[in-house]
Amino acid sequence: MASNPGEIIDYGLTVEYDGTDFQGWQVQLEGRTVQGELNRAISTFLRKAVTVIGSGRTDAGVHATGQAAGFRTDDDLDPYKFITGVNAILPKDIAITGLVRRWRSFDARRDAVRRIYEYRFLNRTAESPLRGRYVWHWKSELNFDAMAQAAQSLEGRHDFTAFRAADCPADHAIRELYVSRMERRDDELVYRCEGTAFLKHQVRVIAGTLLEIGRGRMPAQDMRAILEGRDRTRAGMTAPARGLTLVRVEYGDGPREASPAEYDHSN
Amino acid sequence: MASNPGEIIDYGLTVEYDGTDFQGWQVQLEGRTVQGELNRAISTFLRKAVTVIGSGRTDAGVHATGQAAGFRTDDDLDPYKFITGVNAILPKDIAITGLVRRWRSFDARRDAVRRIYEYRFLNRTAESPLRGRYVWHWKSELNFDAMAQAAQSLEGRHDFTAFRAADCPADHAIRELYVSRMERRDDELVYRCEGTAFLKHQVRVIAGTLLEIGRGRMPAQDMRAILEGRDRTRAGMTAPARGLTLVRVEYGDGPREASPAEYDHSN
Repeated sequence: MASNPGEIIDYGLTVEYDGTDFQGWQVQLEGRTVQGELNRAISTFLRKAVTVIGSGRTDAGVHATGQAAGFRTDDDLDPYKFITGVNAILPKDIAITGLVRRWRSFDARRDAVRRIYEYRFLNRTAESPLRGRYVWHWKSELNFDAMAQAAQSLEGRHDFTAFRAADCPADHAIRELYVSRMERRDDELVYRCEGTAFLKHQVRVIAGTLLEIGRGRMPAQDMRAILEGRDRTRAGMTAPARGLTLVRVEYGDGPREASPAEYDHSN
Repeated sequence: MASNPGEIIDYGLTVEYDGTDFQGWQVQLEGRTVQGELNRAISTFLRKAVTVIGSGRTDAGVHATGQAAGFRTDDDLDPYKFITGVNAILPKDIAITGLVRRWRSFDARRDAVRRIYEYRFLNRTAESPLRGRYVWHWKSELNFDAMAQAAQSLEGRHDFTAFRAADCPADHAIRELYVSRMERRDDELVYRCEGTAFLKHQVRVIAGTLLEIGRGRMPAQDMRAILEGRDRTRAGMTAPARGLTLVRVEYGDGPREASPAEYDHSN
């Protein structure tokens, strides 16, 4: 698609990364970040300073198969050349997997209509050399049925105060989970959740609570009671970042109408 | 199960490993090997010298979710204590995932009745930070249907001379493939094959030939013609080790009757 000379174009990126060796998504004063590496590689490739904006932060150690981000430039980019060129500059643990043209003033955070996360529990005696970086390993048998019942009891629109980080900056804790389910995949128990936006650590605190239920330290019905009690101290621990993957971020055909308070603060 | 004092017991192991940083399975004069690490960790745990025998060698860089091996000792072992104890000594890229008692004089190589391998092609523009160590990345679109037809044409009992390493030590090249199929898994094209035994580099040479067919450099029917021609120079390159995984090794209820020439020399 040709552009008029000097016209600003908004692009959307899809990004995969292994979060193990990053201090998370967002650029910080010190430490290696996904956003920092992307800014550097894209600016090098385009020979001009570019800043990418993510759909939300991911914490240190959290992975993504489909993080979304946006940036703007007056270059008319060929996706194949851009992807192969920038990936050749990026370190091995990040790759751009997609580039699309978005609408004017595309905002990867505000315009997202759905975010999909998975939290993977590996439930067997041995740790996994092949999947160890991407799962929370638990040796004793977990009660899948209890975890599944508890997970599903969170579906819908609720005040998730009980499942947010103490320093979560969101104005309020009302969020909607379209999907909140457990799936069995061989020796893994996977918690999958989908919503428009999430609170800080929301998925990891839910996962930590699911573990307590799977171990039999609380009954499945307690998940709903904890939700309604709005007391973070009754929920489980914040599950380790390594088990969490941002699977995909979805957008509609144009800007999303939403209250700023619902912006994602993520996991 | 209690054993008589001093009675020798044959054990079977299941082993998972990330082959990236190993010089393959078999102990060598120099270099880090899976067998060497297992010998060391098990001997340390049992406080006596133990040698494990694998179901077959895997080459440097080849992975396993379910390699099999055997060893004998006069200790009556508790599987949970053994697995957790030995895994605590092993490096992160190897883990024992199973321990069972086998029959007297169990031979992990001779007694195997089926070996299952997968060769994974990642077929998309970008390399994968999360799966890059386990796939052969190919940017241009591969013709899945042609690869599937070619793969299936190898099923059955054949002389696989065209698909073995120049230095393959087996007496003859007649092997049977019970399964030789392509499967699509999202952005991966996976070649799966099952047989009692394999020649050296057999799966990787088949995979290299499948790639040529997928690229359109030869038609699907050439696979069968190459097989029948028994000429290694007409087949494709030996595909990189990183894409190959030994998925599982199966045993019957007792020793297998087989000609020594059929022993696995593997990939």
